[in-house]
Amino acid sequence: MEKIIVFGHKNPDTDSICSSIVMADLQTKVRGQEVIACRLGEINEETQYALNYFKAETPKLIEKVEEGQIVIMVDHNEFSQTVDGIENAKIDTVIDHHRINNFKTAEPLFYYAQPVGCTATLLYELYKLNNVKIEPKIAGLMLSAIISDTLLLKSPTTTEKDKKALAELEKLANVNKETYGLEMLKAGTNLDKYTEKELINLDAKMMESQGAKYMVAQVNTVSIPDVLKRKAQIEEEIKNTINEKELSLFVFAITDIVNSNSEAIVLGDRTDLISKTYEINDNIAVMPGVVSRKKQILPLIEKNM
Amino acid sequence: MEKIIVFGHKNPDTDSICSSIVMADLQTKVRGQEVIACRLGEINEETQYALNYFKAETPKLIEKVEEGQIVIMVDHNEFSQTVDGIENAKIDTVIDHHRINNFKTAEPLFYYAQPVGCTATLLYELYKLNNVKIEPKIAGLMLSAIISDTLLLKSPTTTEKDKKALAELEKLANVNKETYGLEMLKAGTNLDKYTEKELINLDAKMMESQGAKYMVAQVNTVSIPDVLKRKAQIEEEIKNTINEKELSLFVFAITDIVNSNSEAIVLGDRTDLISKTYEINDNIAVMPGVVSRKKQILPLIEKNM
Repeated sequence: MEKIIVFGHKNPDTDSICSSIVMADLQTKVRGQEVIACRLGEINEETQYALNYFKAETPKLIEKVEEGQIVIMVDHNEFSQTVDGIENAKIDTVIDHHRINNFKTAEPLFYYAQPVGCTATLLYELYKLNNVKIEPKIAGLMLSAIISDTLLLKSPTTTEKDKKALAELEKLANVNKETYGLEMLKAGTNLDKYTEKELINLDAKMMESQGAKYMVAQVNTVSIPDVLKRKAQIEEEIKNTINEKELSLFVFAITDIVNSNSEAIVLGDRTDLISKTYEINDNIAVMPGVVSRKKQILPLIEKNM
Repeated sequence: MEKIIVFGHKNPDTDSICSSIVMADLQTKVRGQEVIACRLGEINEETQYALNYFKAETPKLIEKVEEGQIVIMVDHNEFSQTVDGIENAKIDTVIDHHRINNFKTAEPLFYYAQPVGCTATLLYELYKLNNVKIEPKIAGLMLSAIISDTLLLKSPTTTEKDKKALAELEKLANVNKETYGLEMLKAGTNLDKYTEKELINLDAKMMESQGAKYMVAQVNTVSIPDVLKRKAQIEEEIKNTINEKELSLFVFAITDIVNSNSEAIVLGDRTDLISKTYEINDNIAVMPGVVSRKKQILPLIEKNM
């Protein structure tokens, strides 16, 4: 019997990586059998900072799953964002905080989702529900995930539950959330080392709606103009991706984590899905106050569909 | 602002009706605003017995929902089984114990599902989680739902959680689960009053998979031969339904609740989905030990697809 594995989405962010490690810890303790944390892509610099700080092991990289493999999905549910072979796996559990789309199972499962800012907030609840003690390392990883997903509680996705969980995890992890959090977020804004191709794939999500495939990528920065210096090359790579994956739309959101604004490079046949709401000039849409892909950009696209 | 409404699936069974009333009670108390229990079809005799016994009001019959209506779904998730207009409603919460299929939302939601025998078992957990007192009437409705869905804990869908919930609800509702349960189940086996058309729609679920639409209906009885006396007329109605709804398959399962066996009338172009596993003679498949549509019949069809 293959061991149960747990993983977050492709192009993993800090929540996907940390929640996989945390969920593997929780499930190993609850089930009394080893559950393995996995990942579907490279670790970004922000996440690496968190793993180093809390001395956590990097989850195992996997590309596909075998038929019948028992899997736990965290931080996602859409098949377009998950591991290859999912159609023939047995999905045992999903813990998520996104809409449900492009998802189905042959059998009943454990599915727990809430419209909160971060998957780790729900995992924190599950530790309490199951009366499992949270070790400092595990607390640190949950705290890192919440800080990352809510941009230190500034994103409109933030809920009271995220705030409460973060406050309690701060004590358990024995760090100052502001100091640690800003350092961690800044570690993720070092974008110079990435090629343009890497940049648009760092945190990119593929969606499908009404037959249209589109991608929304997001990077965090402390200086949007700094990123836009590479606009021409980034556009080149986006166009390649659109052709390769037959996309109707690609949105590359550059988010200023200090001032909580975004500017997005918008390309494809369906730029109208953005331009119905934000004017696009020279392929750039300026989006004041926008920091959340899930709560702000994706609903906008769906509404304009 | 429209009030929030809660409803179970079309062709409602005891779990769908009772869980709607129970969830409306819980949500009204938790949210501090009235949540309305609704239903998508006629009350069957088994359910009526439970409602009478515990002096519960019949939920309001609705056929469709308006755009933007906030809804809570219990005991189902598939759009093919739910209210008309769901695509433009706002799905706030789902509490369910079925596989996820044919379901999507534009935004994150509260989704709580577990592979347990009955939705009411999960609602029982939610009362405890939210520290809400369970009144005897509410306990009686949850108990009725669990007895109905698990056939008094005999169905293979039954889990430890259902057993535990039922044992505790028995005390709160102040009834004997065996005596009350058998009376309630028997009330649902009085099939003589139904026309054949009503019979095949009493507890029928429409499914879609790989482009094939199919229906699986189920009735409980204390005598399978008694029901099969009307085989010719039942087949006639099934054929009409197949034509009308363009179905690939219709399975009408007749379940002996005393001996825990079923025989099914199987018609349509895709009878192979059943006959790969059970021999079909004169349109009848004998299924020893089969009592659960969800756990036994539906997975079989999906596997043979």
